[in-house]
Amino acid sequence: MNKELMTKRISENLEHLKNFTATPNKGCTRLPFTKEARQAANYLKTLMQEAGLEVKEDEAGNVFGFLRGTDPSLPCVMMGSHFDSVVNGGDYDGIAGVICAIEVARQIKEKNIIPKRTFVTAAFCDEEGMRFGTGYFGSGAILGNRTPEYCRTFTDKDDITIYDAMKEYGLDPEKIENAKWKDNSIGYFLEAHIEQGPVLDAEKIEVGLVDCIVGIDRYMVTVHGRSDHAGTTPMNMRLDAVDAATKVIYKIADWARETNDGSVATVGYIKTIPGGMNIVAEACEFTVDIRSRNVKNLEDISAKLHDALEREVGAMGGSFDIQNKLAITPVHLHKPMLNMMEEICKKHNFSYRYMHSGAGHDALEIGQVVPTAMLFVPSKDGRSHCMVEHTEYSDFAKAALIMTELAEQLITN
Amino acid sequence: MNKELMTKRISENLEHLKNFTATPNKGCTRLPFTKEARQAANYLKTLMQEAGLEVKEDEAGNVFGFLRGTDPSLPCVMMGSHFDSVVNGGDYDGIAGVICAIEVARQIKEKNIIPKRTFVTAAFCDEEGMRFGTGYFGSGAILGNRTPEYCRTFTDKDDITIYDAMKEYGLDPEKIENAKWKDNSIGYFLEAHIEQGPVLDAEKIEVGLVDCIVGIDRYMVTVHGRSDHAGTTPMNMRLDAVDAATKVIYKIADWARETNDGSVATVGYIKTIPGGMNIVAEACEFTVDIRSRNVKNLEDISAKLHDALEREVGAMGGSFDIQNKLAITPVHLHKPMLNMMEEICKKHNFSYRYMHSGAGHDALEIGQVVPTAMLFVPSKDGRSHCMVEHTEYSDFAKAALIMTELAEQLITN
Repeated sequence: MNKELMTKRISENLEHLKNFTATPNKGCTRLPFTKEARQAANYLKTLMQEAGLEVKEDEAGNVFGFLRGTDPSLPCVMMGSHFDSVVNGGDYDGIAGVICAIEVARQIKEKNIIPKRTFVTAAFCDEEGMRFGTGYFGSGAILGNRTPEYCRTFTDKDDITIYDAMKEYGLDPEKIENAKWKDNSIGYFLEAHIEQGPVLDAEKIEVGLVDCIVGIDRYMVTVHGRSDHAGTTPMNMRLDAVDAATKVIYKIADWARETNDGSVATVGYIKTIPGGMNIVAEACEFTVDIRSRNVKNLEDISAKLHDALEREVGAMGGSFDIQNKLAITPVHLHKPMLNMMEEICKKHNFSYRYMHSGAGHDALEIGQVVPTAMLFVPSKDGRSHCMVEHTEYSDFAKAALIMTELAEQLITN
Repeated sequence: MNKELMTKRISENLEHLKNFTATPNKGCTRLPFTKEARQAANYLKTLMQEAGLEVKEDEAGNVFGFLRGTDPSLPCVMMGSHFDSVVNGGDYDGIAGVICAIEVARQIKEKNIIPKRTFVTAAFCDEEGMRFGTGYFGSGAILGNRTPEYCRTFTDKDDITIYDAMKEYGLDPEKIENAKWKDNSIGYFLEAHIEQGPVLDAEKIEVGLVDCIVGIDRYMVTVHGRSDHAGTTPMNMRLDAVDAATKVIYKIADWARETNDGSVATVGYIKTIPGGMNIVAEACEFTVDIRSRNVKNLEDISAKLHDALEREVGAMGGSFDIQNKLAITPVHLHKPMLNMMEEICKKHNFSYRYMHSGAGHDALEIGQVVPTAMLFVPSKDGRSHCMVEHTEYSDFAKAALIMTELAEQLITN
């Protein structure tokens, strides 16, 4: 394989895709069912056609390219990622995985491999969920998890539903369920993605072999106290919501540190109500996002959170609400494919490590049903979801090379 | 004096002022330099005019009414309070003291007292500091403590400076220094106010004679970390601003409790930036309000705050800014006027007690320079800075009666 040629093609494709943003010079903003999404989808179709694939856009806005295998009765091998972005995001999150998949298809063609199984390149629509506060729209649709009702339920900040946005984009949301693939028609799913974290870059490792995508427990907590004048109310007569809430919050990150297994916990949002500097707060809202590869740690940290709230809010004399906003169990990826990827890395002398993914991906949605492999390439300084996101084009070529050899073994068997 | 007539006029005036809120049915929200502030100022001007006073609005947005004395060379007697409120605050904090002052002017007129000294009713702008995170704007301005530079320094939550808000309100911030009164032109300052604390109501005492107003140290703190993906960034590679900030905040109330002398400390406002539930916060802003009658406790708690920030933010690896928004030393009020008020209470058989004020007041700012007297009336359950704030209108009439007799002795001497 010619790694220089692969790097050149991948870089040209990704450079061209940088044009399709709603915020030129301010990062990639390619929200689903927009002009920029349409431009990107059309360009991806052209690339897939040029690679000799049969192209299809489904009812969810996903774009597929088919390299037909000799035995259509066998479940296919699908590889891909998403082509949407967050607002002012980077140029590689998602879309680089689509381009790697197309490069893999080119390699299969150029190596004159005769596939038994069909190889499918996939560009999924709306993984980020940025516009409608959802996520995994396209990958969920191919599993049959999206309905016209779902499309009518969620709205963007301008109160446009997914339903109406799809129609504007040229899709028929009433037919969304046609996007579902037949059960067992996908034999394997492969995804290459930037790490979006600092580990590979910091450790100067070329490839991350993802063995697990973490589970997530996410809570919205409200501590209720009583609003009082901050000068005239003696300390022993207060119900200070901030005092009680922070006596819980300051421990949360430490609970994650104590697990020693890479579990993370984050309070990214705190709001005090009414929020006056001279008013004892009547309420303090905060979010808690806990992620772990081990269900037990998700449960333990959640239990510690509940216990601490009982204790501190009880001592204060107020009350609290806790709402579970998200509960996702960890997904363990396909061991045999991990072993195959490891062997390929060894053969090419690529440095690699096993690691988990702390972020959700299309592989998280699909991996719940289909044997799935996922590979990470380094993100400079771990930065992502922002315009300074950066990965070397040659790293994507390495990903495409590994995935080509993995796909070759899968499609010829 | 006709206490029923006084009660009736005071209640009518205060009931009318309830209309000037940005949050109808959700308490009084009358922030400085807003439409509601303008409506209230205009109504106060009308009341002062109807009371036969010469009306003037100064360059800081304060409204004054002048009842000219026969000897213009003598320092005047000024009485008043503020006409702004906190967000979702009560209908009496501040504004009732303005209406009491206008009622005193009416009494002086109706009793046909010939003042030697000029009597001035004052309605001060922006005592609470709610909008810009400051305080005592108008009373500070009459002492010459406000400059165009000051007005350009502080901003509200929409990044509007005091400077621009003043222009929008119809004032010229470049002329703010013209609001200063000549040195020694104010002979005495009087203020009637609701207690905003539970003492008088709990002890069923009609009048509080304020001998001391606590000192205040107020800070705006910003802890700077780094924004990162809440899923992909290992705990040991984060600069989590919320984690470091809450490791300081949760101790602050306890430092006040430990003083055992009635010192109080409050964090009423916390903001996380950017505030996403799946983003490690790059910054966490919070306010700290410390009050004590003992300067040493103000200094001790401030020192503990600085030390804890150095330690926790240092351990996190970030940085912090701390801005001292307010530094007021405790003020001891004017003994001879306290004695005069005590005699008046005895004469009318009003129950009274000496007490300190845990809240700051315009009397705190002005009392640092001008001999000052302050009187409290009971707050039901001590509630204030919230919509259930309540004081009987007849209690305000008692305050006006005492202040009329005090003012009479002062202006005729």
